[in-house]
Amino acid sequence: MTKTDNHSRRMDNIAPFYVMDIVNRVKELEQEGRDIVRMEVGEPDFVTVEPIIQAGIEALQNGCTKYTSSLGIVELRKKISLYYQEKFGVDVPYERIVITNGASGALMLAMGVLVNYADRVILSDPGYPCNRHFVRMFDGDPVMLPVDASTNYQLSASMVEKCHEKGAKAVLLSTPSNPTGTIIAIDDIARIHQICAANGSELIVDEIYHGLVYDSDPPSAVTVSDDLFVINSFSKYFGMTGWRLGWMVVPEKYVDAIDRLSQNVFLSAPTMAQYAAIEAFNPKTIQILEQRKQKLKKRRDYLLPELQKIGFIIDAEPQGAFYLYADCSKFTDDSYKFCLDLLENAGVAITPGIDFGKHNENKYVRFAYVSSMERLKSGVERLASYLS
Amino acid sequence: MTKTDNHSRRMDNIAPFYVMDIVNRVKELEQEGRDIVRMEVGEPDFVTVEPIIQAGIEALQNGCTKYTSSLGIVELRKKISLYYQEKFGVDVPYERIVITNGASGALMLAMGVLVNYADRVILSDPGYPCNRHFVRMFDGDPVMLPVDASTNYQLSASMVEKCHEKGAKAVLLSTPSNPTGTIIAIDDIARIHQICAANGSELIVDEIYHGLVYDSDPPSAVTVSDDLFVINSFSKYFGMTGWRLGWMVVPEKYVDAIDRLSQNVFLSAPTMAQYAAIEAFNPKTIQILEQRKQKLKKRRDYLLPELQKIGFIIDAEPQGAFYLYADCSKFTDDSYKFCLDLLENAGVAITPGIDFGKHNENKYVRFAYVSSMERLKSGVERLASYLS
Repeated sequence: MTKTDNHSRRMDNIAPFYVMDIVNRVKELEQEGRDIVRMEVGEPDFVTVEPIIQAGIEALQNGCTKYTSSLGIVELRKKISLYYQEKFGVDVPYERIVITNGASGALMLAMGVLVNYADRVILSDPGYPCNRHFVRMFDGDPVMLPVDASTNYQLSASMVEKCHEKGAKAVLLSTPSNPTGTIIAIDDIARIHQICAANGSELIVDEIYHGLVYDSDPPSAVTVSDDLFVINSFSKYFGMTGWRLGWMVVPEKYVDAIDRLSQNVFLSAPTMAQYAAIEAFNPKTIQILEQRKQKLKKRRDYLLPELQKIGFIIDAEPQGAFYLYADCSKFTDDSYKFCLDLLENAGVAITPGIDFGKHNENKYVRFAYVSSMERLKSGVERLASYLS
Repeated sequence: MTKTDNHSRRMDNIAPFYVMDIVNRVKELEQEGRDIVRMEVGEPDFVTVEPIIQAGIEALQNGCTKYTSSLGIVELRKKISLYYQEKFGVDVPYERIVITNGASGALMLAMGVLVNYADRVILSDPGYPCNRHFVRMFDGDPVMLPVDASTNYQLSASMVEKCHEKGAKAVLLSTPSNPTGTIIAIDDIARIHQICAANGSELIVDEIYHGLVYDSDPPSAVTVSDDLFVINSFSKYFGMTGWRLGWMVVPEKYVDAIDRLSQNVFLSAPTMAQYAAIEAFNPKTIQILEQRKQKLKKRRDYLLPELQKIGFIIDAEPQGAFYLYADCSKFTDDSYKFCLDLLENAGVAITPGIDFGKHNENKYVRFAYVSSMERLKSGVERLASYLS
């Protein structure tokens, strides 16, 4: 990090993605002609599915190039409402569904309407790097609770309850989790919601990877209560990363504040993406997305035991997303150096644990199964050979 | 504004766009079959020009649907660098040019890397509503200096100097200004930059409407110094509002902090928009954009004297953007009520001064010449008839 005399204090605590060092070195090596098996970025190798691309093209042809209302086009909000009705049997009125600039925009709006200077927000460690930085963006205090296999790398109700003794403004759960792929049971979400309600804090549930759970079909947190924030995204299950589109279900009493903040800091989410996303809920589109999901499941089912054979420890069931969070302490006590070493000497790119928190961060690395089976097999061979 | 017990204190000071009340009432009236001349929103009636739409379609056909780097694609950053070289004869290395989620994203990043709790940021009043709210988003203190015709509705060097006696973290200039359309001379920008440099504050120049100056061809603030922030947008001159794309020229020492914040809160700007925007600098595209600019100029040249005949006072030359900021004190001492009254009884939609600040805000309204000449003529007739 470059220091300047004049930048805001918050920037002292907003870390870069260390994986970008890996990504940049991958690009250099590839330019030199090296072949690298890439398992470092949180984005599958698929481009957006054809029906959504076609819908985007049609939106452009129809001149859908102007601002929308800041909460998003009603047609898309109603589609999402219908999706909750059909998939989970729960009535989420479209008025509480806000279209956002990716899940990033949703996290920003939620923290912006909640977090005051020094307010505590409870998060899991490890967790998605940006979560703690969204809290710091508003000069809040991210309270990162260490989690491990004993709680499936998720916050437990008792941890959350104990942490409330010192006060908290909000609790953020992510299920499935990035980087661990582990999920939290709906009953635990309900218990944590009760604790938040009893303590005057708000619960935010990040379901960005909720469409990518492989062995079960867990209910959405919207089934728990009307009085929590639920964040989702068109990026992961729907494969629309570069379109920058997400959504958030908002407790009714916060809709006005979210609208005001969104008007002022975003104006609106990308228009052609909103029109294209309507097509995301079409049964034909869902069929293609489900096929892709099966591919991801096969990759996980292959990679998990292979990594364990090599000596990585994965001690909680990674049930979703496209990540494996692996204990690499057999090989190193410096996850960042280890990742650079694997890149240079084995031709495999993965993400160091230091991106995800401060709890055993040097003992872990994240594998993203975002390459084809052939490439994953090649990666496993290289790792097995280099680390044996 | 709805109050909740639990929202962050900043939300008490983040106002909605009052014009949205007008917009919503317009929609109701139009559904009832009423014909409304719309001059209320900051978006021209044109859709995006065909070459940019085609480039967007090609980007989608080519599968440009994944994340880009958070600073934006190098090809577009280099195009913008070349644009500064060719148009203003100044070398702005692409490494200092950051692609953002609209100019909104640029303002957010700039304030995020600069503003600490209670830091003062100097702005003009009237000014673009979101400017003060971006400061408040980071719990800074927007110092809104009243401006009038005596300084062309812009901050003057002496005002900025005096205001620094109590300290300031940054100064924000907008040229041409929303809502007044007035510009600030490049020498005055240079003087204000010197004051900022001498006082350890940073200068941010918002040039979102810089491509839309009708009677002159002012240099960009990038010609003043390498050591200031310059914000621009593909929304206004380039007509890409709904694509949500802008850029910012950043002092070198802040690039790293901007990159870190952007990585964490945006990930990246919309990918297809970035590829489409490359086409924005094509001479054929510029030719169409210049024709549109001439249309806007004709509208201004028509509307300005007509409004003056009716009794609105416009006492500083509106040289750019697509706005006229008119003193309506002959008719009212409540700009919001006046706008609702004109909408209901004359069928004309305009924006109340209360959206733009606290200085004589009830004595002013904003006219946006974003409808065709025919519609503007109809609007003028209605106003003349109703207000006579």
